[in-house]
Amino acid sequence: FILMIFLCSYHGVFVLLVLARTCYCIPPHDEVARVARFIVHNSDWASMATIASRDPIIGTPFANVFSVSDGPLDNSTGELYMYLTALEISVQDLQVNPSASLVMSLAQTSYCMKEKYDPQSPLCAHVIFSGTIVKVNDTEADFAKEALFSRHPEMIQWPSDHNWFFAKLNITNVYVLDYFGGVKTVTPIEYYKAKP
Amino acid sequence: FILMIFLCSYHGVFVLLVLARTCYCIPPHDEVARVARFIVHNSDWASMATIASRDPIIGTPFANVFSVSDGPLDNSTGELYMYLTALEISVQDLQVNPSASLVMSLAQTSYCMKEKYDPQSPLCAHVIFSGTIVKVNDTEADFAKEALFSRHPEMIQWPSDHNWFFAKLNITNVYVLDYFGGVKTVTPIEYYKAKP
Repeated sequence: FILMIFLCSYHGVFVLLVLARTCYCIPPHDEVARVARFIVHNSDWASMATIASRDPIIGTPFANVFSVSDGPLDNSTGELYMYLTALEISVQDLQVNPSASLVMSLAQTSYCMKEKYDPQSPLCAHVIFSGTIVKVNDTEADFAKEALFSRHPEMIQWPSDHNWFFAKLNITNVYVLDYFGGVKTVTPIEYYKAKP
Repeated sequence: FILMIFLCSYHGVFVLLVLARTCYCIPPHDEVARVARFIVHNSDWASMATIASRDPIIGTPFANVFSVSDGPLDNSTGELYMYLTALEISVQDLQVNPSASLVMSLAQTSYCMKEKYDPQSPLCAHVIFSGTIVKVNDTEADFAKEALFSRHPEMIQWPSDHNWFFAKLNITNVYVLDYFGGVKTVTPIEYYKAKP
Protein backbone atom coordinates (compact mmCIF):
# COMPACT_ATOMS: atom_id res chain seq x y z
CA PHE A 1 0.00 0.00 0.00
CA ILE A 2 1.04 3.59 -0.68
CA LEU A 3 -0.68 6.07 1.66
CA MET A 4 -1.10 9.79 0.90
CA ILE A 5 -2.60 12.11 3.48
CA PHE A 6 -3.95 15.52 2.47
CA LEU A 7 -5.32 18.42 4.52
CA CYS A 8 -8.12 19.76 2.36
CA SER A 9 -10.67 22.50 2.24
CA TYR A 10 -13.95 21.39 0.68
CA HIS A 11 -16.64 24.08 0.45
CA GLY A 12 -14.85 25.97 3.24
CA VAL A 13 -14.67 22.98 5.62
CA PHE A 14 -11.25 21.54 6.40
CA VAL A 15 -11.01 17.77 6.09
CA LEU A 16 -8.21 15.20 6.17
CA LEU A 17 -8.22 13.16 2.98
CA VAL A 18 -6.44 9.81 2.99
CA LEU A 19 -5.71 8.12 -0.35
CA ALA A 20 -4.54 4.53 -0.35
CA ARG A 21 -3.12 2.97 -3.50
CA THR A 22 -2.27 -0.69 -3.85
CA CYS A 23 1.23 -1.21 -5.18
CA TYR A 24 1.35 -4.14 -7.61
CA CYS A 25 4.98 -5.14 -7.78
CA ILE A 26 4.90 -7.81 -10.47
CA PRO A 27 8.00 -10.08 -10.69
CA PRO A 28 10.29 -9.74 -13.79
CA HIS A 29 8.62 -11.28 -16.88
CA ASP A 30 11.36 -13.88 -17.36
CA GLU A 31 10.64 -15.36 -13.91
CA VAL A 32 7.55 -16.96 -15.41
CA ALA A 33 6.53 -19.27 -12.55
CA ARG A 34 6.77 -16.36 -10.10
CA VAL A 35 4.59 -14.22 -12.38
CA ALA A 36 1.98 -17.02 -12.42
CA ARG A 37 2.03 -17.25 -8.61
CA PHE A 38 1.83 -13.46 -8.34
CA ILE A 39 -1.26 -13.25 -10.57
CA VAL A 40 -2.97 -16.08 -8.70
CA HIS A 41 -2.32 -14.66 -5.24
CA ASN A 42 -3.52 -11.22 -6.32
CA SER A 43 -6.73 -12.54 -7.90
CA ASP A 44 -9.95 -13.02 -5.97
CA TRP A 45 -11.73 -14.76 -8.82
CA ALA A 46 -11.21 -16.66 -12.04
CA SER A 47 -13.14 -17.52 -15.18
CA MET A 48 -13.64 -21.26 -15.50
CA ALA A 49 -14.22 -23.09 -18.78
CA THR A 50 -16.08 -26.42 -18.70
CA ILE A 51 -17.76 -28.64 -21.28
CA ALA A 52 -21.50 -27.92 -21.07
CA SER A 53 -23.71 -30.85 -20.06
CA ARG A 54 -27.03 -29.07 -20.71
CA ASP A 55 -29.23 -28.81 -23.74
CA PRO A 56 -29.15 -26.96 -26.13
CA ILE A 57 -25.40 -26.32 -25.67
CA ILE A 58 -24.36 -29.84 -24.67
CA GLY A 59 -20.74 -30.61 -25.59
CA THR A 60 -19.80 -26.96 -26.23
CA PRO A 61 -17.33 -24.90 -24.16
CA PHE A 62 -18.87 -22.91 -21.31
CA ALA A 63 -17.33 -19.93 -19.45
CA ASN A 64 -18.38 -18.83 -15.96
CA VAL A 65 -17.06 -16.82 -12.99
CA PHE A 66 -15.94 -18.26 -9.63
CA SER A 67 -14.33 -16.86 -6.51
CA VAL A 68 -10.91 -18.39 -5.91
CA SER A 69 -8.24 -18.21 -3.21
CA ASP A 70 -4.80 -19.79 -3.05
CA GLY A 71 -4.51 -18.96 0.65
CA PRO A 72 -4.99 -16.16 3.16
CA LEU A 73 -3.26 -12.90 2.12
CA ASP A 74 -0.11 -13.84 4.10
CA ASN A 75 0.08 -17.49 2.96
CA SER A 76 0.10 -18.19 -0.78
CA THR A 77 0.10 -21.88 -1.78
CA GLY A 78 -0.66 -21.68 -5.51
CA GLU A 79 -3.61 -24.07 -5.08
CA LEU A 80 -6.82 -22.83 -6.73
CA TYR A 81 -9.46 -23.37 -4.04
CA MET A 82 -13.14 -22.86 -4.77
CA TYR A 83 -16.42 -23.14 -2.83
CA LEU A 84 -18.94 -24.95 -5.00
CA THR A 85 -22.51 -26.26 -5.00
CA ALA A 86 -24.12 -28.81 -7.33
CA LEU A 87 -26.91 -26.23 -7.87
CA GLU A 88 -24.49 -24.27 -10.02
CA ILE A 89 -24.61 -24.96 -13.79
CA SER A 90 -20.83 -25.22 -14.34
CA VAL A 91 -20.58 -27.63 -11.39
CA GLN A 92 -23.26 -29.75 -13.09
CA ASP A 93 -20.97 -29.78 -16.14
CA LEU A 94 -18.09 -30.96 -13.92
CA GLN A 95 -20.17 -33.85 -12.59
CA VAL A 96 -20.33 -35.19 -16.15
CA ASN A 97 -16.77 -34.16 -17.14
CA PRO A 98 -14.40 -32.82 -14.43
CA SER A 99 -12.06 -31.30 -17.05
CA ALA A 100 -11.71 -27.52 -16.59
CA SER A 101 -9.55 -24.51 -17.37
CA LEU A 102 -9.16 -21.42 -15.19
CA VAL A 103 -7.87 -18.05 -16.38
CA MET A 104 -6.79 -15.16 -14.14
CA SER A 105 -5.62 -11.81 -15.49
CA LEU A 106 -4.14 -8.68 -13.96
CA ALA A 107 -6.99 -6.99 -15.90
CA GLN A 108 -9.01 -8.09 -12.86
CA THR A 109 -6.88 -5.77 -10.69
CA SER A 110 -6.20 -2.06 -11.21
CA TYR A 111 -2.68 -2.87 -12.52
CA CYS A 112 -3.37 -2.96 -16.28
CA MET A 113 -5.47 0.21 -16.27
CA LYS A 114 -2.81 2.09 -14.26
CA GLU A 115 -0.04 0.88 -16.60
CA LYS A 116 -2.29 1.60 -19.64
CA TYR A 117 -2.00 -2.00 -20.87
CA ASP A 118 -4.92 -3.25 -22.95
CA PRO A 119 -6.61 -6.34 -21.38
CA GLN A 120 -5.59 -8.38 -24.47
CA SER A 121 -1.98 -7.16 -24.39
CA PRO A 122 0.50 -9.80 -23.18
CA LEU A 123 1.86 -7.09 -20.83
CA CYS A 124 -1.50 -7.26 -19.00
CA ALA A 125 -0.23 -10.58 -17.64
CA HIS A 126 -2.53 -13.57 -17.42
CA VAL A 127 -2.20 -17.20 -16.48
CA ILE A 128 -4.24 -20.14 -17.82
CA PHE A 129 -4.53 -23.45 -15.98
CA SER A 130 -5.82 -26.78 -17.26
CA GLY A 131 -6.71 -29.81 -15.17
CA THR A 132 -9.63 -31.42 -13.38
CA ILE A 133 -11.75 -30.08 -10.54
CA VAL A 134 -11.58 -32.34 -7.49
CA LYS A 135 -13.28 -32.19 -4.10
CA VAL A 136 -10.59 -31.65 -1.42
CA ASN A 137 -10.26 -34.14 1.45
CA ASP A 138 -11.25 -33.24 5.02
CA THR A 139 -7.75 -32.21 6.14
CA GLU A 140 -7.24 -29.91 3.15
CA ALA A 141 -10.82 -28.60 3.48
CA ASP A 142 -9.81 -26.85 6.73
CA PHE A 143 -7.14 -24.88 4.89
CA ALA A 144 -9.38 -24.29 1.85
CA LYS A 145 -12.01 -22.86 4.20
CA GLU A 146 -9.49 -20.49 5.82
CA ALA A 147 -8.13 -19.54 2.37
CA LEU A 148 -11.57 -18.77 0.94
CA PHE A 149 -13.46 -17.36 3.93
CA SER A 150 -10.63 -14.96 4.88
CA ARG A 151 -10.74 -13.39 1.41
CA HIS A 152 -14.44 -13.90 0.67
CA PRO A 153 -16.13 -13.23 4.05
CA GLU A 154 -19.59 -13.20 2.40
CA MET A 155 -19.24 -16.98 1.87
CA ILE A 156 -19.80 -17.66 5.58
CA GLN A 157 -23.42 -16.57 5.11
CA TRP A 158 -24.18 -18.44 1.90
CA PRO A 159 -27.31 -20.63 2.25
CA SER A 160 -26.39 -23.90 4.01
CA ASP A 161 -29.10 -25.87 2.16
CA HIS A 162 -27.03 -25.45 -1.04
CA ASN A 163 -24.59 -28.13 0.23
CA TRP A 164 -21.42 -26.17 -0.50
CA PHE A 165 -18.17 -28.08 -0.68
CA PHE A 166 -14.49 -27.17 -1.05
CA ALA A 167 -12.78 -28.06 -4.30
CA LYS A 168 -9.61 -27.22 -6.21
CA LEU A 169 -8.15 -27.53 -9.66
CA ASN A 170 -5.82 -30.52 -9.95
CA ILE A 171 -3.37 -28.58 -12.15
CA THR A 172 -1.81 -30.42 -15.10
CA ASN A 173 -0.85 -27.47 -17.37
CA VAL A 174 0.14 -23.86 -16.73
CA TYR A 175 0.35 -21.29 -19.54
CA VAL A 176 1.63 -17.78 -18.84
CA LEU A 177 1.22 -14.71 -21.06
CA ASP A 178 3.31 -11.94 -19.51
CA TYR A 179 5.37 -10.53 -22.39
CA PHE A 180 5.70 -10.40 -26.19
CA GLY A 181 6.74 -13.56 -28.02
CA GLY A 182 3.88 -15.92 -27.30
CA VAL A 183 2.65 -18.11 -24.51
CA LYS A 184 5.11 -19.72 -22.07
CA THR A 185 4.69 -23.05 -20.29
CA VAL A 186 5.48 -23.68 -16.64
CA THR A 187 5.42 -27.18 -15.14
CA PRO A 188 3.19 -27.63 -12.08
CA ILE A 189 6.36 -28.44 -10.06
CA GLU A 190 8.02 -25.13 -11.05
CA TYR A 191 4.75 -23.34 -10.38
CA TYR A 192 4.32 -24.67 -6.83
CA LYS A 193 8.01 -24.13 -6.02
CA ALA A 194 8.05 -20.45 -7.06
CA LYS A 195 7.67 -17.55 -4.63
CA PRO A 196 4.92 -15.11 -5.65
CA PHE B 1 -19.17 10.30 -13.57
CA ILE B 2 -19.26 11.96 -10.17
CA LEU B 3 -16.56 14.64 -9.80
CA MET B 4 -15.22 15.95 -6.48
CA ILE B 5 -12.73 18.83 -6.43
CA PHE B 6 -10.63 19.55 -3.33
CA LEU B 7 -8.18 22.35 -2.53
CA CYS B 8 -5.47 20.62 -0.54
CA SER B 9 -2.26 21.31 1.30
CA TYR B 10 0.30 18.53 0.91
CA HIS B 11 3.59 19.10 2.78
CA GLY B 12 2.84 22.81 2.78
CA VAL B 13 2.15 23.05 -0.97
CA PHE B 14 -1.39 23.84 -2.12
CA VAL B 15 -2.76 21.53 -4.82
CA LEU B 16 -6.13 20.98 -6.46
CA LEU B 17 -7.20 17.35 -6.08
CA VAL B 18 -9.84 16.04 -8.46
CA LEU B 19 -11.54 12.74 -7.66
CA ALA B 20 -13.67 11.12 -10.35
CA ARG B 21 -15.95 8.19 -9.58
CA THR B 22 -17.81 6.20 -12.21
CA CYS B 23 -21.50 5.78 -11.44
CA TYR B 24 -22.71 2.29 -12.40
CA CYS B 25 -26.48 2.49 -12.65
CA ILE B 26 -27.41 -1.14 -13.30
CA PRO B 27 -30.97 -1.78 -14.61
CA PRO B 28 -33.49 -3.55 -12.29
CA HIS B 29 -32.68 -7.29 -11.97
CA ASP B 30 -36.01 -8.38 -13.46
CA GLU B 31 -35.22 -6.56 -16.72
CA VAL B 32 -32.85 -9.39 -17.56
CA ALA B 33 -32.08 -8.53 -21.20
CA ARG B 34 -31.28 -4.94 -20.21
CA VAL B 35 -28.96 -6.19 -17.46
CA ALA B 36 -27.13 -8.34 -20.04
CA ARG B 37 -26.75 -5.37 -22.40
CA PHE B 38 -25.59 -3.17 -19.50
CA ILE B 39 -22.86 -5.62 -18.46
CA VAL B 40 -21.67 -6.03 -22.05
CA HIS B 41 -21.50 -2.32 -22.80
CA ASN B 42 -19.64 -1.64 -19.55
CA SER B 43 -17.08 -4.41 -20.12
CA ASP B 44 -13.86 -3.88 -22.03
CA TRP B 45 -12.93 -7.56 -22.04
CA ALA B 46 -14.32 -11.07 -21.69
CA SER B 47 -13.08 -14.53 -20.84
CA MET B 48 -13.57 -16.90 -23.75
CA ALA B 49 -13.88 -20.68 -23.44
CA THR B 50 -12.90 -22.84 -26.43
CA ILE B 51 -12.17 -26.52 -26.98
CA ALA B 52 -8.36 -26.89 -26.98
CA SER B 53 -6.83 -28.16 -30.23
CA ARG B 54 -3.30 -28.55 -28.83
CA ASP B 55 -1.50 -31.42 -27.15
CA PRO B 56 -1.44 -32.34 -24.30
CA ILE B 57 -4.81 -30.71 -23.56
CA ILE B 58 -6.55 -31.52 -26.86
CA GLY B 59 -10.34 -31.79 -26.48
CA THR B 60 -10.43 -30.14 -23.04
CA PRO B 61 -12.04 -26.77 -22.25
CA PHE B 62 -9.69 -23.77 -22.46
CA ALA B 63 -10.20 -20.30 -20.90
CA ASN B 64 -8.46 -17.13 -22.13
CA VAL B 65 -8.87 -13.34 -22.01
CA PHE B 66 -9.86 -11.10 -24.95
CA SER B 67 -10.66 -7.44 -25.40
CA VAL B 68 -14.24 -6.93 -26.53
CA SER B 69 -16.42 -4.00 -27.60
CA ASP B 70 -20.09 -3.87 -28.51
CA GLY B 71 -19.70 -0.34 -29.93
CA PRO B 72 -18.22 3.05 -29.14
CA LEU B 73 -19.21 4.37 -25.69
CA ASP B 74 -22.22 6.23 -27.16
CA ASN B 75 -23.45 3.42 -29.46
CA SER B 76 -24.13 0.02 -27.88
CA THR B 77 -25.15 -2.75 -30.31
CA GLY B 78 -24.86 -5.86 -28.12
CA GLU B 79 -22.54 -7.50 -30.68
CA LEU B 80 -19.37 -8.97 -29.16
CA TYR B 81 -16.63 -7.71 -31.47
CA MET B 82 -13.05 -8.94 -31.12
CA TYR B 83 -9.73 -8.31 -32.85
CA LEU B 84 -8.01 -11.67 -33.42
CA THR B 85 -4.91 -13.22 -34.95
CA ALA B 86 -4.28 -16.85 -35.88
CA LEU B 87 -1.04 -16.61 -33.86
CA GLU B 88 -3.16 -16.72 -30.71
CA ILE B 89 -3.70 -20.16 -29.13
CA SER B 90 -7.46 -19.82 -28.56
CA VAL B 91 -7.91 -18.65 -32.16
CA GLN B 92 -6.08 -21.80 -33.27
CA ASP B 93 -8.70 -23.74 -31.25
CA LEU B 94 -11.45 -21.86 -33.09
CA GLN B 95 -9.99 -22.83 -36.48
CA VAL B 96 -10.64 -26.47 -35.54
CA ASN B 97 -13.92 -25.86 -33.68
CA PRO B 98 -15.52 -22.36 -33.83
CA SER B 99 -17.74 -23.10 -30.80
CA ALA B 100 -17.10 -20.64 -27.96
CA SER B 101 -18.53 -19.15 -24.79
CA LEU B 102 -17.87 -15.64 -23.47
CA VAL B 103 -18.44 -14.50 -19.89
CA MET B 104 -18.47 -10.89 -18.69
CA SER B 105 -18.96 -9.92 -15.07
CA LEU B 106 -19.41 -6.65 -13.20
CA ALA B 107 -16.51 -8.03 -11.09
CA GLN B 108 -14.44 -6.64 -13.98
CA THR B 109 -15.64 -3.13 -13.05
CA SER B 110 -15.45 -1.40 -9.67
CA TYR B 111 -19.19 -2.04 -9.13
CA CYS B 112 -19.05 -5.31 -7.14
CA MET B 113 -16.25 -4.14 -4.84
CA LYS B 114 -18.09 -0.86 -4.12
CA GLU B 115 -21.35 -2.70 -3.42
CA LYS B 116 -19.41 -5.32 -1.40
CA TYR B 117 -20.72 -8.17 -3.58
CA ASP B 118 -18.50 -11.24 -3.76
CA PRO B 119 -17.43 -12.03 -7.39
CA GLN B 120 -19.30 -15.36 -7.14
CA SER B 121 -22.49 -13.76 -5.74
CA PRO B 122 -25.36 -13.58 -8.24
CA LEU B 123 -25.67 -9.91 -7.22
CA CYS B 124 -22.27 -9.33 -8.83
CA ALA B 125 -24.12 -9.69 -12.13
CA HIS B 126 -22.61 -11.67 -14.97
CA VAL B 127 -23.69 -12.75 -18.42
CA ILE B 128 -22.62 -15.89 -20.30
CA PHE B 129 -22.90 -16.23 -24.07
CA SER B 130 -22.65 -19.36 -26.22
CA GLY B 131 -22.27 -19.49 -29.98
CA THR B 132 -19.62 -19.60 -32.68
CA ILE B 133 -16.89 -17.11 -33.49
CA VAL B 134 -17.22 -15.79 -37.03
CA LYS B 135 -15.12 -13.38 -39.08
CA VAL B 136 -17.22 -10.27 -39.82
CA ASN B 137 -17.75 -9.18 -43.44
CA ASP B 138 -16.13 -6.04 -44.86
CA THR B 139 -19.12 -3.75 -44.20
CA GLU B 140 -19.42 -4.82 -40.58
CA ALA B 141 -15.62 -4.72 -40.17
CA ASP B 142 -15.74 -0.91 -40.47
CA PHE B 143 -18.08 -0.69 -37.48
CA ALA B 144 -16.16 -3.40 -35.57
CA LYS B 145 -12.98 -1.37 -36.09
CA GLU B 146 -14.61 1.80 -34.76
CA ALA B 147 -16.13 -0.15 -31.84
CA LEU B 148 -12.83 -1.75 -30.85
CA PHE B 149 -10.29 0.97 -31.66
CA SER B 150 -12.29 3.71 -29.88
CA ARG B 151 -12.23 1.71 -26.65
CA HIS B 152 -8.90 -0.07 -27.12
CA PRO B 153 -6.68 2.61 -28.71
CA GLU B 154 -3.58 0.45 -28.19
CA MET B 155 -4.90 -1.91 -30.92
CA ILE B 156 -4.04 0.62 -33.66
CA GLN B 157 -0.36 -0.07 -32.98
CA TRP B 158 -0.52 -3.86 -32.77
CA PRO B 159 2.01 -5.51 -35.14
CA SER B 160 0.54 -5.61 -38.67
CA ASP B 161 2.44 -8.81 -39.55
CA HIS B 162 0.14 -10.66 -37.12
CA ASN B 163 -2.69 -10.47 -39.71
CA TRP B 164 -5.34 -9.25 -37.29
CA PHE B 165 -8.97 -9.62 -38.31
CA PHE B 166 -12.33 -8.54 -36.90
CA ALA B 167 -14.61 -11.23 -35.55
CA LYS B 168 -17.70 -11.55 -33.38
CA LEU B 169 -19.62 -14.17 -31.47
CA ASN B 170 -22.62 -15.43 -33.42
CA ILE B 171 -24.78 -15.57 -30.28
CA THR B 172 -27.12 -18.57 -29.87
CA ASN B 173 -27.63 -18.61 -26.07
CA VAL B 174 -27.60 -15.92 -23.38
CA TYR B 175 -27.54 -16.78 -19.67
CA VAL B 176 -27.80 -14.04 -17.04
CA LEU B 177 -26.97 -14.30 -13.34
CA ASP B 178 -28.08 -11.08 -11.71
CA TYR B 179 -30.10 -12.14 -8.65
CA PHE B 180 -30.88 -15.07 -6.35
CA GLY B 181 -32.89 -18.00 -7.73
CA GLY B 182 -30.62 -19.37 -10.42
CA VAL B 183 -29.63 -18.58 -13.95
CA LYS B 184 -32.04 -16.84 -16.33
CA THR B 185 -32.23 -17.27 -20.09
CA VAL B 186 -32.67 -14.45 -22.60
CA THR B 187 -33.27 -15.13 -26.30
CA PRO B 188 -30.86 -13.41 -28.70
CA ILE B 189 -33.85 -11.43 -30.08
CA GLU B 190 -34.75 -10.07 -26.62
CA TYR B 191 -31.07 -9.38 -25.98
CA TYR B 192 -30.54 -7.31 -29.14
CA LYS B 193 -33.86 -5.45 -28.67
CA ALA B 194 -33.13 -4.34 -25.10
CA LYS B 195 -31.74 -0.91 -24.21
CA PRO B 196 -28.63 -1.11 -22.01
